Amino acid sequence: MQAAYRPIRVALLGAGSVGSQVARLLIENADELASRVGTQLELTGVAVRNLDSKRDSDIPKELLTTDAEGLILSSDIVIELIGGIEPAKTWVKLALSSGSDVITANKALVAAHGPELFDLAEQLGAQLYFEAAVAGAIPIIRPLRESLAGDRVDRVMGIVNGTTNFILDRMESTGADFDDALAEAQELGYAEADPTADIEGFDAASKAAILASLAFHSEVPVEKVYREGITKVTALTIETAREAGYAVKLLAICERIQTESGEGLVARVHPTLIPLEHPLAAVRGAYNAVFVEAESAGQLMFYGAGAGGAETASAILGDLVSAAKRHVAGGPGLADSVHANLEVLPIQSITTRFQITLQVRDLPGVLASIASVFAKHEVSVETVSQSAANAKTSAILTVMTHAASEADLESVVSELESNSAVQNINSVIRVEGI
Amino acid sequence: MQAAYRPIRVALLGAGSVGSQVARLLIENADELASRVGTQLELTGVAVRNLDSKRDSDIPKELLTTDAEGLILSSDIVIELIGGIEPAKTWVKLALSSGSDVITANKALVAAHGPELFDLAEQLGAQLYFEAAVAGAIPIIRPLRESLAGDRVDRVMGIVNGTTNFILDRMESTGADFDDALAEAQELGYAEADPTADIEGFDAASKAAILASLAFHSEVPVEKVYREGITKVTALTIETAREAGYAVKLLAICERIQTESGEGLVARVHPTLIPLEHPLAAVRGAYNAVFVEAESAGQLMFYGAGAGGAETASAILGDLVSAAKRHVAGGPGLADSVHANLEVLPIQSITTRFQITLQVRDLPGVLASIASVFAKHEVSVETVSQSAANAKTSAILTVMTHAASEADLESVVSELESNSAVQNINSVIRVEGI
Repeated sequence: MQAAYRPIRVALLGAGSVGSQVARLLIENADELASRVGTQLELTGVAVRNLDSKRDSDIPKELLTTDAEGLILSSDIVIELIGGIEPAKTWVKLALSSGSDVITANKALVAAHGPELFDLAEQLGAQLYFEAAVAGAIPIIRPLRESLAGDRVDRVMGIVNGTTNFILDRMESTGADFDDALAEAQELGYAEADPTADIEGFDAASKAAILASLAFHSEVPVEKVYREGITKVTALTIETAREAGYAVKLLAICERIQTESGEGLVARVHPTLIPLEHPLAAVRGAYNAVFVEAESAGQLMFYGAGAGGAETASAILGDLVSAAKRHVAGGPGLADSVHANLEVLPIQSITTRFQITLQVRDLPGVLASIASVFAKHEVSVETVSQSAANAKTSAILTVMTHAASEADLESVVSELESNSAVQNINSVIRVEGI
Repeated sequence: MQAAYRPIRVALLGAGSVGSQVARLLIENADELASRVGTQLELTGVAVRNLDSKRDSDIPKELLTTDAEGLILSSDIVIELIGGIEPAKTWVKLALSSGSDVITANKALVAAHGPELFDLAEQLGAQLYFEAAVAGAIPIIRPLRESLAGDRVDRVMGIVNGTTNFILDRMESTGADFDDALAEAQELGYAEADPTADIEGFDAASKAAILASLAFHSEVPVEKVYREGITKVTALTIETAREAGYAVKLLAICERIQTESGEGLVARVHPTLIPLEHPLAAVRGAYNAVFVEAESAGQLMFYGAGAGGAETASAILGDLVSAAKRHVAGGPGLADSVHANLEVLPIQSITTRFQITLQVRDLPGVLASIASVFAKHEVSVETVSQSAANAKTSAILTVMTHAASEADLESVVSELESNSAVQNINSVIRVEGI
């Protein structure tokens, strides 16, 4: 044990599933945490909206308070677990302004207002920790901030939303269509009554913005993250993919892009085909995983639970021990530099492979007509396979391209839409991990 | 950029494949590293045994020196990449004694003399970093030291030796026997001319000692790590395992054990059956992965390259940025507490499942006789399958047990050895990950 140091006062904002677990661990493991930190961590209070709400936790009643501001101002470290932008943002700013360190699991807040909050923290010598904001229990923020600090990250591809991974996994394993898999996820508590934030990719986009800003030391506004949800993925999409040797995953992809004027970055969230033998394809159920490609380290993957009260609490406690040790001993903390300042480019800047599925008229010369559209826009086709559609006069074409620019592919799709032989463009899916 | 701070002097001991890459990255990425750290990192010299040795690197000749001690004494941070115990140990102690931080990739040194070196570092306010010592580029030390600092780790299972994973993977995918797979590994440079340290599990045992000490905050002498290599694994072992739904992996397993008097830990390295659907089973070739089970975080896995010059250099540079930032700003560093001080127990303390393969005389009553041996020692059998052996008078029995204590299983094996119906005990393999 180190020399005596006064207890560190810890305030908790929110007593939901994560907050309850954090409170429990702080109380049950007080001695163990004290020996890891070098002094006691004292839970001084838990701010809640309503003292009388029913809770599934054993937080001692005397710790509950509705006076969040008073609690914040009398603490050394504030753990923000209320989520959403307000009042979380106001309270985090109040805490940082009063010199407290802040630990948050709030990806929406970090993605939308990270730069403002980090600036404020830096001016005041306080720290903002957010390991729990991306991929729950998986330590990914710390490796990006520290372990890879001497390397150059080229690409991050993550399954960062457990709800959509669960839905896609169920669709794949049972053949269910999207609506049924969503209903099952809702019954099991993996999806909310209003699932928009998950299935439309908003949650994953927040995490993509955070991952991209850390990986590339640049400011990445969440509005500049390209976003496409999974609502258009059908059982047929998944079956077709599987037959061709691919899994369909909602990926958050952040990559460094070489441009004529230098370097930029693209962050994007969309359903993606990845080869079945890729490590990300084996991530089942509601699990999360983040795959990182760095210049020297090569390929790394971090895998674990992406949500859950206890799991997220583990990440919060890890940050808490770091913050508390820094209170005891001082030190550099985790300033998030945006020194590289890469420009966030639109998705048209990327180069990738595409699978396009088309319903076409089953007439002689159609294939040649379609192929010429790809050729005209310099998109090279690797394979075309044809299968019969329902109507006798239609066929389904599945086209896999070689690497092509998104911009060129958009031109192809636009021209296919007006091609008289094309009855419908069933899907256009990017292919990664080859 | 922070305010000006004097350059930090970095010394490199060793100019092998890792050292060359570290030197290259320090020189090529000097500006980028300076903006991450807040000041310049100056490579002051590279200690080598012989100035005239041929090297596959572009280290500027004027940086090379044979005066390791002089170099150490004029540096702020020393990177030790010579490997082995001496002179590495003497030089690391000299560096720490002079107040320098030390970064090492030397698992043998950390496993054998870690406690002595950590004590010395703590007395002198210096730091010892060793992310590269376990699983190469994979950030596993830092997550165990920091991210899981508020959690309770129950178990760590790692594929931490790329050579043996490559050999077992080749045996599985090609049906080759051990000797042929080893020869292939040697041809491809994955195994050394003298492969003993890898194939007999010494390398993995060093890493198991380090992982166990970090996971359980206890001192774990490498001599107390149970160690069994892969030399007895045959093509038949692997085929039999695969048919039953398992992969054979050399795992380093560290686990917390409840005893009558409290808690202890066991660290062990041995060939292990794991279910094909377990994330570790999908780790192919020379890749490494570490699977962690923690009370709150649940199951986590860290995957990546376990060796290689550039990959290991990435981990070294991550540590270097941390160490250098601490030079600029001070701070708590990474003291490795052994406050939990769990006793390291012998392997007889574990409970696990076993697969035992026996060649027996093919006579009526043999199965009953074998089964009674298991029953007598309270080892419950889950399945027995019988197949014909080469000789007409023999049969092969494959027995899968339920969870049983290692001590009881040893009694079973010992009694089977003297059973007149048993012609040979072909293999006894522990089964994990179910």
